[in-house]
Amino acid sequence: MSKIAVIGAGSWGTAFAGLLAGEGKSVALWDRNPELIDAINTSHVNPRYLTDVRLPAAVKAVGDLSDAVVGADIVAMVVPSQAVRGVMEALAPSLRPGAIVVSLAKGLECGTLKRMTEIIRETAPAVTAAALSGPNHAEEVSHGIPSATVVASPDESAAKLLQEEFMTAAFRVYRNRDLVGVELAGATKNVIALAAGISDGLGFGDNAKASLITRGLAEMTRLGKVMGADPGTFAGLAGMGDLVATCTSRHSRNRAVGERLARGLTADEAQAELGMVAEGVKTAESVRDLALRERIEMPLSLSVYDVIYRGKDPRECVQDLMSRGPVEES
Amino acid sequence: MSKIAVIGAGSWGTAFAGLLAGEGKSVALWDRNPELIDAINTSHVNPRYLTDVRLPAAVKAVGDLSDAVVGADIVAMVVPSQAVRGVMEALAPSLRPGAIVVSLAKGLECGTLKRMTEIIRETAPAVTAAALSGPNHAEEVSHGIPSATVVASPDESAAKLLQEEFMTAAFRVYRNRDLVGVELAGATKNVIALAAGISDGLGFGDNAKASLITRGLAEMTRLGKVMGADPGTFAGLAGMGDLVATCTSRHSRNRAVGERLARGLTADEAQAELGMVAEGVKTAESVRDLALRERIEMPLSLSVYDVIYRGKDPRECVQDLMSRGPVEES
Repeated sequence: MSKIAVIGAGSWGTAFAGLLAGEGKSVALWDRNPELIDAINTSHVNPRYLTDVRLPAAVKAVGDLSDAVVGADIVAMVVPSQAVRGVMEALAPSLRPGAIVVSLAKGLECGTLKRMTEIIRETAPAVTAAALSGPNHAEEVSHGIPSATVVASPDESAAKLLQEEFMTAAFRVYRNRDLVGVELAGATKNVIALAAGISDGLGFGDNAKASLITRGLAEMTRLGKVMGADPGTFAGLAGMGDLVATCTSRHSRNRAVGERLARGLTADEAQAELGMVAEGVKTAESVRDLALRERIEMPLSLSVYDVIYRGKDPRECVQDLMSRGPVEES
Repeated sequence: MSKIAVIGAGSWGTAFAGLLAGEGKSVALWDRNPELIDAINTSHVNPRYLTDVRLPAAVKAVGDLSDAVVGADIVAMVVPSQAVRGVMEALAPSLRPGAIVVSLAKGLECGTLKRMTEIIRETAPAVTAAALSGPNHAEEVSHGIPSATVVASPDESAAKLLQEEFMTAAFRVYRNRDLVGVELAGATKNVIALAAGISDGLGFGDNAKASLITRGLAEMTRLGKVMGADPGTFAGLAGMGDLVATCTSRHSRNRAVGERLARGLTADEAQAELGMVAEGVKTAESVRDLALRERIEMPLSLSVYDVIYRGKDPRECVQDLMSRGPVEES
């Protein structure tokens, strides 16, 4: 049986560790917060995230990165994407060669515009990198409500191993060879989710949001194609599936931040109010940089950037978006 | 200015007539129910649908089909799809040659499996047929909440005229040349919406529903391709847009019927409880017939058929769907 480490005890890391431990696997769950570690090991509840979920005793919280990953066959990275490089640099010396590091983080590194598996490969060249992404709100996965996801790796046997190790009766895992597409979809969809939240916050309805989701997926796919991804990935669970879940669910923190942007809060104020990081805020900047660099038309994502980083009035963005664009659908 | 008749004063017909009249157009709104006609003409409120919406005085309710359509340049058909042939046969003699009949009905004729514009052309060969479809919940359009839609016609000038006549500041109209795709998407999405409602009714969450929507669109697109539609239409507003709105909105009657199917009601009981026709119930039968005839894999739609027409337990369907299918995403 594989030895598994989950790095990051936020809501998704906690749910994922619980999912695997529920199948009888031993899971080391690392976090930097010592109080959280003590609480998990004594009460089997994460005191900060998913506080209504009792974790199996097979989840052992660990405060030392090296202890968490030493000898691990599979390391799941579930820290915020801007923290992945630092955490990888710290744990890389303790990884055994041939280990699989699978990114569950959904973002792009600011400045470098790199995907998470690019960072993993740079910081730990001897491991196999992979990504897992899909419509997986932690609140539902942690309660055993049926969900599906996608794993991708350039190494097909690694993808198959992850599929076997992660699949449960209520958590269905599909393989996809398109690592670039799976990662880009997971990152870029958070920016569209901010737009969906803005739409909700402005009092618009399901018609407008469904239109926005549709046109959002079109621009995500345009970016993906230019970056070498398979458009089919964007039509699948890691693309459309995750986008729809994130834009429509009350569990989505990016959507929730968007609502608050529409109310006039800044992105920092909105995240502080929610007590969570919304990955889309940083990703809006990276997506804008990519769109400009690659000359890709991404009006929704650029509007979100303007709202967050240039203080543009969301109402004005909607006005622009409603009055622009092709009169023939394309 | 075009003379417009709207045939059918259900919620969408009422909202659509109000939308056009709000732009200063004269609209004849036909319905077979004399009390409803009287009420609209005296109180300017439809007493049965959208009862919180005041209609402009330019909406004139009419009880005689011939009176409603005589001299009309544009006739919008908004009766349930199984009633379209009968209504078309009754009004066809009164249509002027060259009039445009645009279908707002979303369904396929049971038995013949024909699209609405096929019925329009058969019953009135001298008119131009068109279709309008998109994420357009009447409850939102009638309150001026921003929405977008698609018009399609084999006659490009007719499509342009409809676009001009129907576009308002809050109702954005796109043209699409793919009539087959626009009509098939509008019809088949209702079956997936029933499945989404079943998922909700069984207590599943946003993750499961987003997965179901994603795989639902894939099977709708497979059917469309075989029938000669452009897959791009299914990725657009009339496809994905309408599907997402219908599967996630509290306004969706198909989703609401699905919830009741999960509670053990029959489709007839569910529709009676809601006091509305859910087009997906009949369409489930037509889609099944098409899938079998054309040998297209449509597991979700066929499961919905089994629940409605063969009394299959929805839980068993979910079990089948979760345990089947490709381990590689395709």
